[in-house]
Parts: sequence; C-alpha cells; structure tokens
Amino acid sequence: MEPDHCALISTSINIENAYFGDIILPSVSSIGISLQVVTMGVVSRNWLYVKKFDGEPTNKNFQLIDEELPELQDGEFLAEAEYLSVDPYMRPYMSRFPVGSLMIGGQVAKIVESKNSKFPVGAKIFGQFGWRTHTVCNPEKSQSDKPYLLPDFGTLPASLALGVLGMPGNTAYFGFLELCSPKDGETVVVSGAAGAVGSIVGQIAKLKGCQVIGIAGSDDKCKWLKTLGFDHTINYKTENVLEALKKAAPKGIDCYFDNVGGTITESVMRLMNLYGRISVCGTISNYNSGPITVQDPQRDFVFKQLKMEGFIVSRWRDRWMEGILANLDWIKQGKLQYEETVTSGFDNMPKAFMNMLKGGNTGKAIVKVQ
Amino acid sequence: MEPDHCALISTSINIENAYFGDIILPSVSSIGISLQVVTMGVVSRNWLYVKKFDGEPTNKNFQLIDEELPELQDGEFLAEAEYLSVDPYMRPYMSRFPVGSLMIGGQVAKIVESKNSKFPVGAKIFGQFGWRTHTVCNPEKSQSDKPYLLPDFGTLPASLALGVLGMPGNTAYFGFLELCSPKDGETVVVSGAAGAVGSIVGQIAKLKGCQVIGIAGSDDKCKWLKTLGFDHTINYKTENVLEALKKAAPKGIDCYFDNVGGTITESVMRLMNLYGRISVCGTISNYNSGPITVQDPQRDFVFKQLKMEGFIVSRWRDRWMEGILANLDWIKQGKLQYEETVTSGFDNMPKAFMNMLKGGNTGKAIVKVQ
Repeated sequence: MEPDHCALISTSINIENAYFGDIILPSVSSIGISLQVVTMGVVSRNWLYVKKFDGEPTNKNFQLIDEELPELQDGEFLAEAEYLSVDPYMRPYMSRFPVGSLMIGGQVAKIVESKNSKFPVGAKIFGQFGWRTHTVCNPEKSQSDKPYLLPDFGTLPASLALGVLGMPGNTAYFGFLELCSPKDGETVVVSGAAGAVGSIVGQIAKLKGCQVIGIAGSDDKCKWLKTLGFDHTINYKTENVLEALKKAAPKGIDCYFDNVGGTITESVMRLMNLYGRISVCGTISNYNSGPITVQDPQRDFVFKQLKMEGFIVSRWRDRWMEGILANLDWIKQGKLQYEETVTSGFDNMPKAFMNMLKGGNTGKAIVKVQ
Repeated sequence: MEPDHCALISTSINIENAYFGDIILPSVSSIGISLQVVTMGVVSRNWLYVKKFDGEPTNKNFQLIDEELPELQDGEFLAEAEYLSVDPYMRPYMSRFPVGSLMIGGQVAKIVESKNSKFPVGAKIFGQFGWRTHTVCNPEKSQSDKPYLLPDFGTLPASLALGVLGMPGNTAYFGFLELCSPKDGETVVVSGAAGAVGSIVGQIAKLKGCQVIGIAGSDDKCKWLKTLGFDHTINYKTENVLEALKKAAPKGIDCYFDNVGGTITESVMRLMNLYGRISVCGTISNYNSGPITVQDPQRDFVFKQLKMEGFIVSRWRDRWMEGILANLDWIKQGKLQYEETVTSGFDNMPKAFMNMLKGGNTGKAIVKVQ
C-alpha cells in the first residue's frame, strides 16, 4: 500500500519543500505564520506532524492549526476537501519529514474558485494536498503527482478515487499484475488481505483464474473475504499460519502479494514454488515498531523498490552455447581473464572440495585426474 | 555458483534415480554391487557420499569404491575423466541425496570407446557424470543436461569447460547480465569475488562500463582482483565491510551479485540505490552451517529461483488512468467489489489514521470531511 503522492501547494506563506525521493511536500516551518497574510483569504484547517513517531502514533503526534490562504493568482484554483485518505504508508513516510510538516495524503476535493480553465468551479479532483480542508494550487507548477480531474465514475461515489479507483486500486492492479504475472491455475497468497489493496488483489487474482488465499486479522474480515470470492482465508491471530497454509495450498504457492512482512511472510516463503514471485507492497507489521532512526531492511526493500532474484543457471539451458561462445570471444580478445586452482589426482577429490569450501581456491577449483 | 547438472548413467548395475527438482542422478544403493556384473568391463573409481553432511565436510563423508562397467550397447560411449569440477553447490545439493549416492559434479572427459557416431573416440566432452573416472553413457537417454562435445577452444585448455567456458562462466554471464541488467556508469558489488563465478562477473561488469567493487577473503585475492580490473576490493576478514563499501560506493550500489549471503549481504543491502537489482547466485556463508534438516530461507531463495520485488505505485505514474479505468470496468461488470470504512469529520483524521494502523478498517479507510 504505497503512495503515489506529492503536492506542491503554491501559496504566499512561508513554506519549505521537504524533499524525499520523489516526494515533495510543503512543510510549514512555523505555526501562526498566517498572521503575516493580510488578504481576506479562506482559512484552511491543517493537521501538522508535530512530534516524531515512535511506536504507535498517538494524539500527541498531531496538531490542528488554521492557515489563512492567499487570494488566487492566475493559473491557480481553490479546492475544498470532501474525502481524505488515511493509509499505512503515511506512518513510515512521515518519519522522514521534519516536525512541523503538514501530514501527507491524498484527497478528493471540489473546485470552489478557479483562475485555471482546465480546473473549472464544480469539478471534482484528486490531489496530493495533505491533511487540509482547503488548498490553493497551480497544477502546472506541481513538480510531480499533479492533481487530476476524476474520470466519469457513473453512479459510483467520488470517494472511490481514494480507494479502488485511485492509489490503492492501482497499487493492486499494477503491483500484482506487473510483478507477480499470475497465471491461470496458480496459487496466490495475499497478506493484509482485508485492506484496501489486499482485498482488490485477491479479486483480481480470481479474475485471472488463480486459487486465492487471504490472510487477515479477524474472523469477520475472513468472512468478508469469502464473500469477495477468496477460496481460503486464514485468521493469523487465531490460526497457525504455516499449518493453515499447508492445508490451503497443497500444491505450494506461486505468487505472494505481501502487505505485512514479518513472521507471516516467513511462513509463506517456506511454501513458495519454483519460480515463485513475491510482490512486496508494504511491511505494515513493523511500521509501528522502533524509532525512525532504526534501519528496517524490509521497509527499505519497498522504498528503494529493489528486485532480488535467486537463480540456478540451468534455466538458461537453451542458450548454453551462447554464454560459452560470448565468454570465449572475450577471452580471445584479451578482455576476460581466468584463473584455475588445480589439484592433482582423483584420490584428492574430497580434499579439493573441502579446500574450495574454505575459500582455498582462486578462480575455478578443479581436479586433474592424472 | 549454481549448477546445471544431472547425468543419467545407464549401466546394468543396481541404480536408483534420486530425483530432486530438475536433478536426476544415479545413487548406488549398495556398495560392492559390481560383484553381480560378470562381463570384463572397465573399472571406474567412484567417490560416494556415505555420511550426511553436518557442518564442514570431512573425509568421513566420502568413500572411494570400484565399479566394474558393463560392455557398451548401441548408442553408448565410454568416457574417461580428464578434469573434474569441485563447486560450492555440491555441499547443499548433496544434502538432499540419500547416503550411498555418487557425488554429483561435471567433468571434462575423453571418449575412449564408442557405439555412437555423434560421440566418436578421441572427442572431448563435458558431462554431468559425477565424481567418477569412467562413465558409460547413452546421451539420447539422458533425461536432462545431456553431455555435449566441447566447442573449438583454439589453443585454450579443455579444463576451461569446467570454469569460464562452462557452468561457472555461464552462471556469471547469464546470472549477472539477465538479472542485474547492468548499465554504463552503475556501481556493481560482487561478493565471493575471487571465486570462479565472482571473478568473471566483475570482469563482465567492467566490460559493461560499471564501477566494480569485489569482496573477498584475503589480501592476495584482493590483489588478484585488482589485476583483473576491479576498481575497489574489500577484504571482509580484515575490514569493516559496511564502512569500506560506503567509501568505495559513494553513489550507492545499483547491482549486487551475491555469492555468499549472511552479514556481508546485509551490509550491501543497506547501500542499495532506488531500483537496485540483486542476483542471488549462492549463499556460501551458510552452506556449512547446520544439519540438512534446517530450513534456510536464503538457500531456498536460490533453489526455488524466487523473485521478490519491492515497489511504490508511482513507478506506473505514466499508466495511471489505465489502472483506474480497468478497475472501473470490472466494478461496472460486477466482477470487483469494494468496501470503505468511513470516519466522519476532519477533526477525526488522527483517530481514523490510528485505527487503520491497528487494522480497524475493512477495505479502504477514508475520512469524510463533513
């Protein structure tokens, strides 16, 4: 459940851009700065991040302030929030922002004033504006994740732009289909299955003809997942996850969409099949643990979007000679050198093997029979 | 340093096929069985695996026996080993075979008798025949990893078919180029860099224009790596790997070719860049640890050839509407359901956020402003 977010809100008040990865977000560097603004602007109510997260968030981490907004300049609009999103990613992401920053997040908002013809009054938009009721924005000046007009949802509610028809829905759609490449008949496990992303991943997996196992934290959630078409569910709070997985996935697991990390993930990993694919979306299980200074390899794996793949070279059996001839060519051109550590005598095979395991060789360890 | 191996040796003696993944290998189920063979065959000397590995291999794990080979049948040849390979993969792989099995491994052999016109007397071949001096083989009946005639190496020694022009060379070539996709100017780290595979990976990385850092276990090895063109080397036995990496890779690490796992890998992972690629070839650091019954996630990751990728959905920013419209279409067709957990009131943002982190939501957690 990772974000596509970032808003650049262009106002005349004192704003710093805290830059982190591809995230740009305004941080109000001091509170009460709206006193400097003299126009009769609209007042936005903003939730600030005023104390570093350490463990589970509490009310002390947040403070609500008023911010008086400036008059619109050409190209700008004023948007009023209708629905705001709260998502797991906010916990780890905010840890990287200085105290005093606006809480990050997306919202569905209605344009209530506009000096930009592409964003007319009355239009509904999605914007990465943060936890605030009103926003002045020049979309052309947004450096990334520009606000966009909602497409026609028909009779469906606009709030879905925060869920199945927004970031979480796209997280499921792309993160599962692109990275897991599910095939008809395969077994798929989803952790955090009753969440905004997991519940969609499981349904998409069913649409692709997979057997789907959802792991969630209550019987009610599991019951709901069954109504969505999940074949099996596991309540990790009351069941032994590994044993339950063994029963639910007798043919092993081909795809794992991971929202949680931790011990649930360890159990799933034990039952993965050859060429299994794991899409690591989040690591909720440890979002609330430890101070922000502690390095978390699982969290880093997501943020850095790393890809790790184990292999046995026989998978390229069909291209075997291609590799040999390429290396041979480089050797002949003097571009590739080799070294051999040769042990003589067939009787010395174990000795050569044991020596190689201890790092006694340089380059390839071989045994010459005679 | 993973194998492409597997030989099916067709003899008339009592042989069982121990099947594991795509590995098929004969295991001599009892010793002394050659007594049953009455023809005047050639005698092969074979190293058997007679005691389960537990920790570092010792002489007690191995036993040398004689095996009298049968007369050739049509389609068969008799090959005499010239060079045999000892490789790290043999340690974990043999753990899966029953006691009494022939030690697995590849060899360069010369055809000394033949009833197969494609494998004439005098030809040199590579075969996955195991630790044995003589082999009777019908290549057409081999179920996988068939023996093959060596291509023309020019003046280079045939033993290279076990190294740079064989499995280790191909492991470097495919495992690095296919899974790491190195780009000009990127920083590449190789662990086990002075081994048969690692030393080739580093050189191929240089050929691709990368900055290359090799990690090895002695100053001599490091010195040798420098002569191969490695830009930086780290002796993990005498240096702090993390600190040394920080100095050698000031721009972070883009590709990591991992032969060892363990704490070296943990240090490398901390310095990986966005979209970093990790090719997990082996986990030598733990091959000698623990009895075979212990599950080793790193080892499993290689054997099962798993792929794990972290992501942030903004990487598909350019395809954003594609995802939204696909999900919208599924909803309209009644194929995709959604649920929202709605909290009312902007003042309740922190409460909704904290509740969601504790799993209090089903489906998407949102806040309705009014």
